[in-house]
Amino acid sequence: MITLHTSAWLNTPKPVDMASLRGKVVVVHAFQMLCPGCVSHGIPQTQRIREVFPEEDVAVIGLHTVFEHHDVMTPRALEAFIHEYRLNFPVAVDEPSSGHPVPRTMQHYALKGTPSLLLFDRAGELRLNHFGRLDDMVVGRLIAQLMAEPWPDVAAERASGAAFGAASARGEELDGCEGGVCVPRHL
Amino acid sequence: MITLHTSAWLNTPKPVDMASLRGKVVVVHAFQMLCPGCVSHGIPQTQRIREVFPEEDVAVIGLHTVFEHHDVMTPRALEAFIHEYRLNFPVAVDEPSSGHPVPRTMQHYALKGTPSLLLFDRAGELRLNHFGRLDDMVVGRLIAQLMAEPWPDVAAERASGAAFGAASARGEELDGCEGGVCVPRHL
Amino acid sequence: MITLHTSAWLNTPKPVDMASLRGKVVVVHAFQMLCPGCVSHGIPQTQRIREVFPEEDVAVIGLHTVFEHHDVMTPRALEAFIHEYRLNFPVAVDEPSSGHPVPRTMQHYALKGTPSLLLFDRAGELRLNHFGRLDDMVVGRLIAQLMAEPWPDVAAERASGAAFGAASARGEELDGCEGGVCVPRHL
Amino acid sequence: MITLHTSAWLNTPKPVDMASLRGKVVVVHAFQMLCPGCVSHGIPQTQRIREVFPEEDVAVIGLHTVFEHHDVMTPRALEAFIHEYRLNFPVAVDEPSSGHPVPRTMQHYALKGTPSLLLFDRAGELRLNHFGRLDDMVVGRLIAQLMAEPWPDVAAERASGAAFGAASARGEELDGCEGGVCVPRHL
Repeated sequence: MITLHTSAWLNTPKPVDMASLRGKVVVVHAFQMLCPGCVSHGIPQTQRIREVFPEEDVAVIGLHTVFEHHDVMTPRALEAFIHEYRLNFPVAVDEPSSGHPVPRTMQHYALKGTPSLLLFDRAGELRLNHFGRLDDMVVGRLIAQLMAEPWPDVAAERASGAAFGAASARGEELDGCEGGVCVPRHL
Repeated sequence: MITLHTSAWLNTPKPVDMASLRGKVVVVHAFQMLCPGCVSHGIPQTQRIREVFPEEDVAVIGLHTVFEHHDVMTPRALEAFIHEYRLNFPVAVDEPSSGHPVPRTMQHYALKGTPSLLLFDRAGELRLNHFGRLDDMVVGRLIAQLMAEPWPDVAAERASGAAFGAASARGEELDGCEGGVCVPRHL
Repeated sequence: MITLHTSAWLNTPKPVDMASLRGKVVVVHAFQMLCPGCVSHGIPQTQRIREVFPEEDVAVIGLHTVFEHHDVMTPRALEAFIHEYRLNFPVAVDEPSSGHPVPRTMQHYALKGTPSLLLFDRAGELRLNHFGRLDDMVVGRLIAQLMAEPWPDVAAERASGAAFGAASARGEELDGCEGGVCVPRHL
Repeated sequence: MITLHTSAWLNTPKPVDMASLRGKVVVVHAFQMLCPGCVSHGIPQTQRIREVFPEEDVAVIGLHTVFEHHDVMTPRALEAFIHEYRLNFPVAVDEPSSGHPVPRTMQHYALKGTPSLLLFDRAGELRLNHFGRLDDMVVGRLIAQLMAEPWPDVAAERASGAAFGAASARGEELDGCEGGVCVPRHL
């Protein structure tokens, strides 16, 4: 049920198969390599997630959601970035949209900008869609909560409607990069 | 089953009744007001724990385990410290031992020094006894895991023996305050 | 011309003789051991000043200006604090005033609170009286500027009236400790 | 006397004329946009230098010394980087060498890698050539010292041979990016 439209996978021997993630909590960190808040906060936090949680329970995926400077944030540039920053998780390139600067997965989940954190439970349901900065302790808590949910009985639990926060609707106040975070312009 | 030998309670209208904590995860941060690592790391982290986790599920208690400079780290000095640092949790004074610099609760749990973090599950069982620094993400994960354990069925689960880490035996290499942490000397 | 009213000197084999400082730039860090902003920022910065600048040109002095919690911020408590925080500079105890909570040197220089940084040039003239936080780069610049002033010809230069900032007049909005800094109340 | 071989200037209405810098202290920060230590430390420190020191006395220049990933660290990519990170100083592109990955200015000054900090005095003499991280207080001190040197009499002073540190000879242990800093490989 996790929908990633991807045009390339980097830092992994082969593309991550979404079907293979069923039963795992899935962390998706949406970033751009030239987004200051991603580089200073989101990327290091995602690296810590990978170190703190076991691979058998939690999958961690980077998603390069380029919505500006498309000509320089290319897959080849991303490859150099991944190497220099020693990323420890696979990175997907969000598939470009035809006729729109915002790529397809970013549109699908109505991400407000970068960095964004998506958390999916073991059943593949989106449980958190957060734009901006979250404290490490909060992130550690949220992922552990999802890990602790019973599976495959999670569906019933879902009926109770628990969500960490309201799904973020598309933001209105969009205006480039400020304060380290980036949002699409002119949408 | 949580054992706190206390000689005073501060920052709370009345002493915290251990019996009232049954069913809650309990976080005990053992510190000294003149321990640099407690002031720079342990205390702020404990404040964040209080902010991130709900009071109905998680109790947070500070424990002033004075094992050196007894004449100046008095309850009255601690009171001023609590006020200036705006602590947001109740603080117990660990009861002094007669004839020994290490106070009673610190002895009971064989704490190696300050800062130390103790985590008790909803059944009152000690599940973590950690001396030194832990990352916020790890602490967030551990507390959330304990919160997620079923209760009152937790006892059965305990039989499976899960513990975050080995209970710390009494440390051997004791040597005052270095690198921000403090350990009892000459014991 | 530097006026320190002191009731004790700690962390030094003997009291620092003000006359012996003539010809040196003198840095005085006014702090209280229970002031959060002093512990997290002012004290570590003062330690770095001591490490970056040579002793033959720059003297560094801590001044314990107790204006609240007098009963617990005693010289004996300060001694333990100095030991645990491994201070690398001599510390003077600002002499208590009779009938007033603000000690004598603090009154003399009309310090607004703690932490405060005083910079004296090689001629003993006060050139900076700053309450609150200053960036390390600014502090490095200011001290180096004072070091570079010619001596004993500094007096002539003084005539040109250069000062880093206006001498701080006594603050009006006094209100305990907030945001890490402390100011005297009820004055 | 400052030698910058440049192939482009960004973030400035026109190329900085070296002759126009005579009489100013000149700070050159050599960086690569994909060098982690440059992004986390060198660039922010250079921004602070620009904020702390007056333009009439201190010139601040970024130098993009690309010695790896040449195909993605292009002037156009650098332009996007400058925009997203809100750089507040002009940036020169170090002129590529023919037949060698290390660009010309980097070769001229035998820079060991990125980030590197070059300080030139008012007479245009190189006084510091430092690879890696320097504390803000040290940088503040060094620049203020250079500012304070008499000019145009600085030449005589130079005869006394004062230098902050030995000019760095070409490093031997070259090995890509590690610990945030990058050094040329296979040279």
